[in-house]
Amino acid sequence: MRVVTFGEIMLRLAPHGYDRFVQSESFLATYGGGEANVAVSLCNYGLDAAFVTKLPGHEIGQCAVNSLRKYGVDTGLIARGGERVGIYYLEKGASQRASKVIYDRAGSSIAAAGAEDFDWGKIFENADWFHFTGITPALGDNVAAICMDALKEAKRRNVKVSCDLNYRNKLWSKAKAGEVMAGLCEYVNVCISNEEDAHDVFGIQADGVDVTKGEVNHDSYIDVAKKLTDRFGFEKTAITLRTSLSANDNNWAAMLYENGKAYFSKSYNMHIVDRVGGGDSFGAGLIYSALSGYEPQKAIEFAVAASCLKHSIEGDFNLVSVDEVNKLAQGDASGRVQR
Amino acid sequence: MRVVTFGEIMLRLAPHGYDRFVQSESFLATYGGGEANVAVSLCNYGLDAAFVTKLPGHEIGQCAVNSLRKYGVDTGLIARGGERVGIYYLEKGASQRASKVIYDRAGSSIAAAGAEDFDWGKIFENADWFHFTGITPALGDNVAAICMDALKEAKRRNVKVSCDLNYRNKLWSKAKAGEVMAGLCEYVNVCISNEEDAHDVFGIQADGVDVTKGEVNHDSYIDVAKKLTDRFGFEKTAITLRTSLSANDNNWAAMLYENGKAYFSKSYNMHIVDRVGGGDSFGAGLIYSALSGYEPQKAIEFAVAASCLKHSIEGDFNLVSVDEVNKLAQGDASGRVQR
Amino acid sequence: MRVVTFGEIMLRLAPHGYDRFVQSESFLATYGGGEANVAVSLCNYGLDAAFVTKLPGHEIGQCAVNSLRKYGVDTGLIARGGERVGIYYLEKGASQRASKVIYDRAGSSIAAAGAEDFDWGKIFENADWFHFTGITPALGDNVAAICMDALKEAKRRNVKVSCDLNYRNKLWSKAKAGEVMAGLCEYVNVCISNEEDAHDVFGIQADGVDVTKGEVNHDSYIDVAKKLTDRFGFEKTAITLRTSLSANDNNWAAMLYENGKAYFSKSYNMHIVDRVGGGDSFGAGLIYSALSGYEPQKAIEFAVAASCLKHSIEGDFNLVSVDEVNKLAQGDASGRVQR
Amino acid sequence: MRVVTFGEIMLRLAPHGYDRFVQSESFLATYGGGEANVAVSLCNYGLDAAFVTKLPGHEIGQCAVNSLRKYGVDTGLIARGGERVGIYYLEKGASQRASKVIYDRAGSSIAAAGAEDFDWGKIFENADWFHFTGITPALGDNVAAICMDALKEAKRRNVKVSCDLNYRNKLWSKAKAGEVMAGLCEYVNVCISNEEDAHDVFGIQADGVDVTKGEVNHDSYIDVAKKLTDRFGFEKTAITLRTSLSANDNNWAAMLYENGKAYFSKSYNMHIVDRVGGGDSFGAGLIYSALSGYEPQKAIEFAVAASCLKHSIEGDFNLVSVDEVNKLAQGDASGRVQR
Amino acid sequence: MRVVTFGEIMLRLAPHGYDRFVQSESFLATYGGGEANVAVSLCNYGLDAAFVTKLPGHEIGQCAVNSLRKYGVDTGLIARGGERVGIYYLEKGASQRASKVIYDRAGSSIAAAGAEDFDWGKIFENADWFHFTGITPALGDNVAAICMDALKEAKRRNVKVSCDLNYRNKLWSKAKAGEVMAGLCEYVNVCISNEEDAHDVFGIQADGVDVTKGEVNHDSYIDVAKKLTDRFGFEKTAITLRTSLSANDNNWAAMLYENGKAYFSKSYNMHIVDRVGGGDSFGAGLIYSALSGYEPQKAIEFAVAASCLKHSIEGDFNLVSVDEVNKLAQGDASGRVQR
Amino acid sequence: MRVVTFGEIMLRLAPHGYDRFVQSESFLATYGGGEANVAVSLCNYGLDAAFVTKLPGHEIGQCAVNSLRKYGVDTGLIARGGERVGIYYLEKGASQRASKVIYDRAGSSIAAAGAEDFDWGKIFENADWFHFTGITPALGDNVAAICMDALKEAKRRNVKVSCDLNYRNKLWSKAKAGEVMAGLCEYVNVCISNEEDAHDVFGIQADGVDVTKGEVNHDSYIDVAKKLTDRFGFEKTAITLRTSLSANDNNWAAMLYENGKAYFSKSYNMHIVDRVGGGDSFGAGLIYSALSGYEPQKAIEFAVAASCLKHSIEGDFNLVSVDEVNKLAQGDASGRVQR
Repeated sequence: MRVVTFGEIMLRLAPHGYDRFVQSESFLATYGGGEANVAVSLCNYGLDAAFVTKLPGHEIGQCAVNSLRKYGVDTGLIARGGERVGIYYLEKGASQRASKVIYDRAGSSIAAAGAEDFDWGKIFENADWFHFTGITPALGDNVAAICMDALKEAKRRNVKVSCDLNYRNKLWSKAKAGEVMAGLCEYVNVCISNEEDAHDVFGIQADGVDVTKGEVNHDSYIDVAKKLTDRFGFEKTAITLRTSLSANDNNWAAMLYENGKAYFSKSYNMHIVDRVGGGDSFGAGLIYSALSGYEPQKAIEFAVAASCLKHSIEGDFNLVSVDEVNKLAQGDASGRVQR
Repeated sequence: MRVVTFGEIMLRLAPHGYDRFVQSESFLATYGGGEANVAVSLCNYGLDAAFVTKLPGHEIGQCAVNSLRKYGVDTGLIARGGERVGIYYLEKGASQRASKVIYDRAGSSIAAAGAEDFDWGKIFENADWFHFTGITPALGDNVAAICMDALKEAKRRNVKVSCDLNYRNKLWSKAKAGEVMAGLCEYVNVCISNEEDAHDVFGIQADGVDVTKGEVNHDSYIDVAKKLTDRFGFEKTAITLRTSLSANDNNWAAMLYENGKAYFSKSYNMHIVDRVGGGDSFGAGLIYSALSGYEPQKAIEFAVAASCLKHSIEGDFNLVSVDEVNKLAQGDASGRVQR
Repeated sequence: MRVVTFGEIMLRLAPHGYDRFVQSESFLATYGGGEANVAVSLCNYGLDAAFVTKLPGHEIGQCAVNSLRKYGVDTGLIARGGERVGIYYLEKGASQRASKVIYDRAGSSIAAAGAEDFDWGKIFENADWFHFTGITPALGDNVAAICMDALKEAKRRNVKVSCDLNYRNKLWSKAKAGEVMAGLCEYVNVCISNEEDAHDVFGIQADGVDVTKGEVNHDSYIDVAKKLTDRFGFEKTAITLRTSLSANDNNWAAMLYENGKAYFSKSYNMHIVDRVGGGDSFGAGLIYSALSGYEPQKAIEFAVAASCLKHSIEGDFNLVSVDEVNKLAQGDASGRVQR
Repeated sequence: MRVVTFGEIMLRLAPHGYDRFVQSESFLATYGGGEANVAVSLCNYGLDAAFVTKLPGHEIGQCAVNSLRKYGVDTGLIARGGERVGIYYLEKGASQRASKVIYDRAGSSIAAAGAEDFDWGKIFENADWFHFTGITPALGDNVAAICMDALKEAKRRNVKVSCDLNYRNKLWSKAKAGEVMAGLCEYVNVCISNEEDAHDVFGIQADGVDVTKGEVNHDSYIDVAKKLTDRFGFEKTAITLRTSLSANDNNWAAMLYENGKAYFSKSYNMHIVDRVGGGDSFGAGLIYSALSGYEPQKAIEFAVAASCLKHSIEGDFNLVSVDEVNKLAQGDASGRVQR
Repeated sequence: MRVVTFGEIMLRLAPHGYDRFVQSESFLATYGGGEANVAVSLCNYGLDAAFVTKLPGHEIGQCAVNSLRKYGVDTGLIARGGERVGIYYLEKGASQRASKVIYDRAGSSIAAAGAEDFDWGKIFENADWFHFTGITPALGDNVAAICMDALKEAKRRNVKVSCDLNYRNKLWSKAKAGEVMAGLCEYVNVCISNEEDAHDVFGIQADGVDVTKGEVNHDSYIDVAKKLTDRFGFEKTAITLRTSLSANDNNWAAMLYENGKAYFSKSYNMHIVDRVGGGDSFGAGLIYSALSGYEPQKAIEFAVAASCLKHSIEGDFNLVSVDEVNKLAQGDASGRVQR
Repeated sequence: MRVVTFGEIMLRLAPHGYDRFVQSESFLATYGGGEANVAVSLCNYGLDAAFVTKLPGHEIGQCAVNSLRKYGVDTGLIARGGERVGIYYLEKGASQRASKVIYDRAGSSIAAAGAEDFDWGKIFENADWFHFTGITPALGDNVAAICMDALKEAKRRNVKVSCDLNYRNKLWSKAKAGEVMAGLCEYVNVCISNEEDAHDVFGIQADGVDVTKGEVNHDSYIDVAKKLTDRFGFEKTAITLRTSLSANDNNWAAMLYENGKAYFSKSYNMHIVDRVGGGDSFGAGLIYSALSGYEPQKAIEFAVAASCLKHSIEGDFNLVSVDEVNKLAQGDASGRVQR
C-alpha cells in the first residue's frame, strides 16, 4: 500500500530539556511537519509512503531529505530549489509553564513553489492514499492551488484522500481558511479534526461547550462530527479529545464517526515527553487502520494508542511499530520493561 | 523604577539531570544567589535593577558579572577584588531522594569585603527600592555592618526596603541571626519569610504547628505574620507556604499580611524542574507588585504565580515575563502550547 | 565484614534521556550486572565487597574493572582473558511506552569461563557472605558448575549464601532453570524473589493471583514465601512487590519471611529515574541488614528504602549511603533540599 | 570613549566540532555579525560601545540582545519589531575541506527596517566613533539609505567613521556595491579592506597580483591602499593579508597606510579554532588603537595581534583583553601556560 | 548506474574527541564497514548504490539500516535475522599516540549467514558494478562461499567487479587469506591495495622496501602493481600510499596502474579528523571514476582527492559531493571559506 | 613494588574544548595534582601506589577519592575531614593564545591539615619509594612540617625519595621556597627539575641561558644538573626540556644526570591535547624506570616517552601502559592505527 503526503517540512530548533530559549547555547535540530510526520509514521508501520514538498538544493535542504530517508520515506518526488527551509523554534514547557512555538517559515521553498514543481500524475502512480492538512493550503494561494491540483488528480485516479483541518491562525484568517478548506474538503474522504479546529475553520460548534476548557462531553463531539460529515459527506470523521492538565500531563482520547455511528476510544493519561506531532500520529494511525480494513472501534483504538505513544517520544516523528501500538491498544499500559 | 539588591552571587556547580555528585564528569556552571536572583527577575519584568556585591577581578568573577549583564542587570556598582567566587554544589533530587547542597563559600570576595568597597550614597542615586536577605549579614560581621550602612543610607533617601529572612544554619547560629536580624529589620518595610525562618531567626511560632511537616494551616500563618509585623512594624509581611510531597512534586502558595488583613493566594501543585531560587522569585514578584501599586490580593497572586513558574526553569534565575506571570495568575495553568 | 559476589558485568549502552534506539547518535556507556550491582551497593554502605567474574584483558574489560574500583569494590579476584564484554542495550521507556532491553551477551568472557579460572578457596579467604543470582548459572552449564564449586566451598567455610532467583527467559528455559536452581538452592541461606520468578523457576504460585497484573495481595505473597522456604529451608525469604503503573511510576514494597513470620514494608510510590538494578539494590539492602543484625521489620524497611532510592539514580548502581537509606526508612520521603 | 556600530546580528547555527551539516543532530547557537562583533570586542577592551540594529520582539530576538549585553554592549538603542532574526549556518572546515556558510537572512528585521526606526541624533549623543561594514548597505536600498542618514549625522557631530568594505556577492552585484559604497565612503575616515574587496567593490587592483592565491607582495598592498586613499581621502587605510594554507592553518598580517606611509605588521602562522570574525576583530583593534592614539606601527601590531587571537576563539566574538593583545603584540607567541 | 556492495556493517563505538577508552562515559554510536562506506560514498556522488549484508531484526540492526538509508543507500536487499550487529570500538589517537581499534564482531548476523540468505540473481538485477573487500571472505568460510556465489553471478551478468584486498590479521592468517583471495581475485576487474596488503595476502613485494616505514618509492609501487596485475589480469590496479607522520598528520597519495602504465596522483599532507574509512573512500572514488569513464590520470586524482577529504570528516562515511572532490582534485586545497 | 606519594588533589574545572572561561556554560570536572598524577601513572604501570592527602568527608571529597580508586590507587591512607577540596580552573589555550590557570585552593583540607592527620609509620609499611613535589610544602608551614615528618620516617625505613622541585609563585616566594626546599632536599635521592625551577628555588643557573626562551643547550643543562647534584648529593638528577612553539605545539625532551654522566633523550615534537600533568608523567616514568632497574639511557627514554604520550591525553592523569610507552621509546612515533 502506498501513501502520498504533501506539505511542508521544517527545521525544528529546540533548546535541550526544559531550557528556555534565552538559556540555550545550542538547539536540537530535527525536522518535521504535519504531513511529513504522517509519512514517517506510516513507513514505521511497514507501508510505502512518499512525502512531496519543495526544498532548497543546499545542505540544510538535504538534511531535511535525509531525516525522512532515514526512516524509509520515499523522497524521490521532492522538488528541489528555492531559498530556504522553514523553521520553527520550540521551547518545551513544564508544569504550569506552557510550551512555546515561534514560526519562521515565510519564504520557504514550498511556500514559494509553483504548479510546475509537481507532476501529480507521476506522483500518484501506484498511490492508494493521499494525505494533507490545513497547514498546506494556508502557506499561500499558490500552494492552495497546488493542493487543488493534487486533489483533482487523486479523484481522477480513485486515490482516497484524508485531511487534518489543523487551523494555524498565524498563517491565515478563519474566514480565508473556511473558504479555501471548504473547496478542498469536497475531495476529502476522511476528515480529522478537533473541536477547536472545526469551529475555527467552519464555524461548527456543539451547543454549550467551551472548547478552550478541554471538557470532555461525548454528545458534543458527536454533534460536531455529524455536522462536519453532513456538510462534506466524509466517509469517516475523527475527532481528537485532548485535556491539558499541565504542560507535563495531558489526557488523550478520540472518537470516530462513521456511517452515522460514533466510536469512542479509551482515554489515556499521558506523562508527556514531547507533545508536538501528537495529532499527526493520530492521523497516521487512522490511515493505517483504514488501509488495513480495521473495524471502526479497532481503528480508533489503534489511532489513539499510536498517538498516545507519540507523546513519549522526542521529536515530531512517531517512532513506533505496529506491534507496539497493538500492545497498548490491547490494554498493556503498564510500561513494564521489555527484555 | 530602580531597585538595588545587595548580597553574594555564587558559582553553582550542578551535575547534569538527576546524576549524583559521584557520577558527574562535568558540572553545569551557572551563577546565582538570593539577591542576584531578585535583580534578574526584576529586569525580566522591565524594571531597572542593579546588583551590588564584590567579585574577584579574574575571569571567574567576570563570568558572574556577565551572567547578570546578560539579563540586563546593572553591574556597574559591583566592587572588584578579593580572592574567590563562592561556590555551591547542587545535586538535584528525584522522587524520595532529596536534593543536596554543599556550600564552599568561605573566603569569597564579598565575605571578605569592607565598608570602603561600597559608596551607598552613590549606589542609591535614583533608587526606589532596596532588597537584601538574611544570607548577606550571615556572611560575617563585616558584611552585616555593610548591610547596616546600606539601610541607614536607604532610610535617609526614603528608599523602600525589603528583606527575606532566609536563615542559613551553616553560616550562623540562630541566636546570632536573631540578634543581628533584629537590628536590621528595624529598617525594613516589607518582610518575606516562611514559618521555619520566622521560628529559626526570631523564635516566632504559631501554636500547635509542626513546621517540618509542611501542613498548611491558615490561622497559624496569620499568627506568625501578625507577630512579625507587631514586632518590627512591617508594612507588608509575606509568608510562603511550601509542602514537599517529593523531590519532584511540591505544593506552593503564599499569604500577604497587610494592614491587619491576610490575603491567601491560590495553591499550585508543581512538577519541579528546579526548585532553587523559588523563594527569591517570590520576593521579586512581591517587589514588582508593590512598585506597580497592585492591590494586596493581586499582589500575592502575582508573586506566587511568578514563583510557581520559577520551579519549571533550570538555574537560580526566574526567566519569565510579566505577561507570562499574569496569564498564570489569571488562571490559565493548562500548559497548552503557545504558537 | 566481607562479601563476595559472582556473576557477569556487562557494558550497558543506553540512549540519552528518553530517546529511542533509532534516534540515538551516542550511547551512555556504563557497566552493570546483578551481582556487580550488589557489590557496589555494599561498598557504598561501608562493607568490604569483592566481585568475581572473568573479563577480557583489553581496554573495554578494563573499563568494567574501573567502574567497580571507582566505588571501592575489590576487583583483585577477577580473572582476565576471553574475548568480549557482554553488552546490553537499554532504551528507557516513558509513560505508556515500556523500556526495552536488547541483550548481546553471548560469548562473553565469563560465559566462556572454566573452573580453572577461579580458585574459590582463595576467593573466600576472610569472606562472610556470598551472593549470586539466577542469571549466573543461566550463562551456561560451565558457569552453573562454577557456581556449584563456589557454593560447596562456601558451605565448607561457613560463608552465608544469598541468591536472587532472577529468571531470564532469553538465557534458559523454565524447565532448565528449575532443575539447575533447585540444586544450587540447597546451599542458599537467604532467598530473594518476586512472585513471577518463583513461578517461572519453581512453579510456585499462590492461588488466585495473576502475577502479570501486579496486584498486591498479602496472603498470596506469604503463601509463595512459605512454599519456597518449605522446599529449600531458607533462613530468610524476601519477596519484592512491584506494581507498574506506567514506565514513569511504580509502586514498590517487599516482604520478609523469617521463622514462619511475614514482615511487610511500607509501600513507596516512585517517580522513576532508572528502574534497572532496583531488585539488586534490594538484595544489597537485605544483605547489609543481615550482616548488621537488624530485626526483621527493620531489615525489610532498610532493604525497601534502599531500593526505592535506587529508582531515583541513573545507571545500574545504587549510589546511596546508609544514612540516606535510614532517613527514608525512618519516614522522611519529602525530598526536601539537604543543605 | 563611546563607539556606535550599526548592522545586522544573525543567529549562527553551527554543527559541533568538524561535523558536516548532514551529520548534525544539534547546532551550536551563537550570534554574530560584522558590526556587532566589533562592538563586543571594544567592550572587552574597556570602551563603551553601542550596537544599533533592528530585532524582532520575540524570544529569539531577545537572545541576540542578551548575547551582546553579556559582554557589556549597550543594546538600548536597538529597535524592536519585524519578523525574524537572520540566520547563517556555518560548517567548520578542516585540512583541505573548506568551511561553508549558508545564509538565510532575507526578510530579517533589519533588512526590512525603515528610516523611522532610527533616531541618529539620539543615537550619536556622546558618541566618538561610528563603524559599519559593506554588508549593511548591501541588505537593501532602505538600509543603504539608513546608513547614509547615519553618516550625515555623524559628520554633523564630528563623529569619526570607519568602514570595512566587506563585499558579499550573495547580497549585491559588484556594480551596485561599487556605486553605493562610493557614496558612503565620502564620509569615511578610516577604511579597512583586503585586496579582494578593494577589487570587487571599486575595481582597484595592483598590477601583477592574483588575489585568489594569497601571495604576499608588499608593493602591491601599498599600491592598493594608495589608490583607495587617493580616491576617497581616507585618513587611514588598513589592508589585511590572509594566506590560507588549509582550513586549519592560515598566515595573517596587515598593513596600515597613513599619511602616505605604509606600516607592515608581523605575520602570524595561526592554527585556527574559528576563523569567522577574524576581520571584524582586526577592525576593532584598529578602532581601539586610533581612539588610544597609538602610533601607526603600534596600531597595526595591536590590530593584527588582536585578530590573530580571535582565530583561537570559538564564535564570532573576539573575547580578549587589551593585556592579552599587548602581550602577543610585544612578541610572546609561545602559548605558555599562564598560572 | 547501479553499484552493489557486499560485506559487514558494524556499530562503531568511539569515545568523544581524543578521550581514551578508560575515560569514556559515553560512546559516539555510528555505523560503518568497508563496503557500506563505499555504498554511501557512491550515493553521495549521485549513483544508485545498494548494500547487501545480513542484520538482526531488532532495533540495533535497524539503526544500521537507517544509517545507510539516511544517505540514500538501497537497503532493500539486506537479509534480516541472526543474533547481533558486529561492533568495533575506536579510540582516536593524537600526536605520537596511535588510534586503537578493538573488534567485537564474532557471531554477527553476516558472519553467521548462509547461502540461502542471498539471491544473487535478484540482487544483481540492473547492477553495473559489484564491490567487496578482503574483509568479507575473512568473516568465515561460509561468507567466503557467499562471495564466490556473488562473483560467479556477477561474471554471468557481466557486472564489473572491484576488490580492495584489505587484509585483517585478527580475522584470518596470511596463508588462508592468500588462498581464498586468490580464488576470488580470478573474478576481479579492478584491484585496490597498498603495499602492505599485497605483501600480507599474496606475498608480493618490491625489492628493497620496508613497508612499515611508509617510504614512498615510485618504482617499488609500480613493481607491486605490475606483479598483482600479471598474476590476476586486473584491468586496473590501484595502490594507495600513506605516510603516517603522527596520529594527526599523514601524507596521502596513490597510483593507478592500467594497460602497463602507472599514473601517480598529487600527494596531500592531511591534518586528520578521522582516518577510518580513508581507504574505502578511495575505492569509491575509483569506482565513480571508472563508471564515469575518466581518463586514468583524472581517475586517480579524483579518487585521491575524495579520500583526502574523507580524512577531514568524522565517522566511516565520506560525506562529500562530486563538486567538492573536483574542486580539490583541480588544485584548490586552500580551505578558504565557501560562502 | 609499592610507592607512596603525598600532596594535594584538586578539582579541575575546565571549559569544553578551546572555549574561554567567559563562554563556558559547563565545566569538565576532573581531579588532579602533582603527586596524585604520579600515583595514577604508577598504577597504570602495574605498580602498587598509594596517595596520601586530606580530603573533606562530603561528596566532592569522595569524588576525588573515587577518581583515584578508578585507576587502582590505594586511597585507604587518605585522611578525611576539613572544609573543602581545592580547585583550579583551567582554560585550554590554542595557537598564540596561552592556556590559563586560576587557582582557588586556599583553605583546602590538606592545606589546613596537621601532623596528627598522618601516621607515617603506618603509611610507609611495605613502601619502597616516596614521592612529593615542591607544591606540597608550599601549601603552608604546617604542610612543610608534615613533609619533613614523612621524610624522616622514610629515611628511617630506607624508603627511596624522589622530589620534583615544581616552583609555584602563587604559593610562596622564591626565598621561602629555597629555604624550605633546601631542608627537605637533604632527604631526597632523586631530583626532578627544569632549568626554570632550579633557578627559582635554588638560584642555580647555567651561564648564558635565557630560560624563558626555551632554547636547548646541552651544556647548560648538564651544568644545572651538576650544581644541583653537588649541592644535595642526589643519586639521580633529571632535567626536563620543554620548548613552547605555541599553545598547540611543544618540543619535549629530558636529560638524566647520574654518577657524573649526562644521558639525553630523544626529542619529540608534540601536537598537544592537554599539557597539564606533563611533568608529573615524566616523574612517574622515572620512578618506574628506577624501580625496574633500567640503565640510565633506557630510563630517560622511558620517562620522556611516557610524558610525551601524556600530552595527547585529556586530564591530569597519564593513562598509558608500559607497553605503549616502550613502543614509543623504541622509536615508533608514527601514530599508525593499532587494530
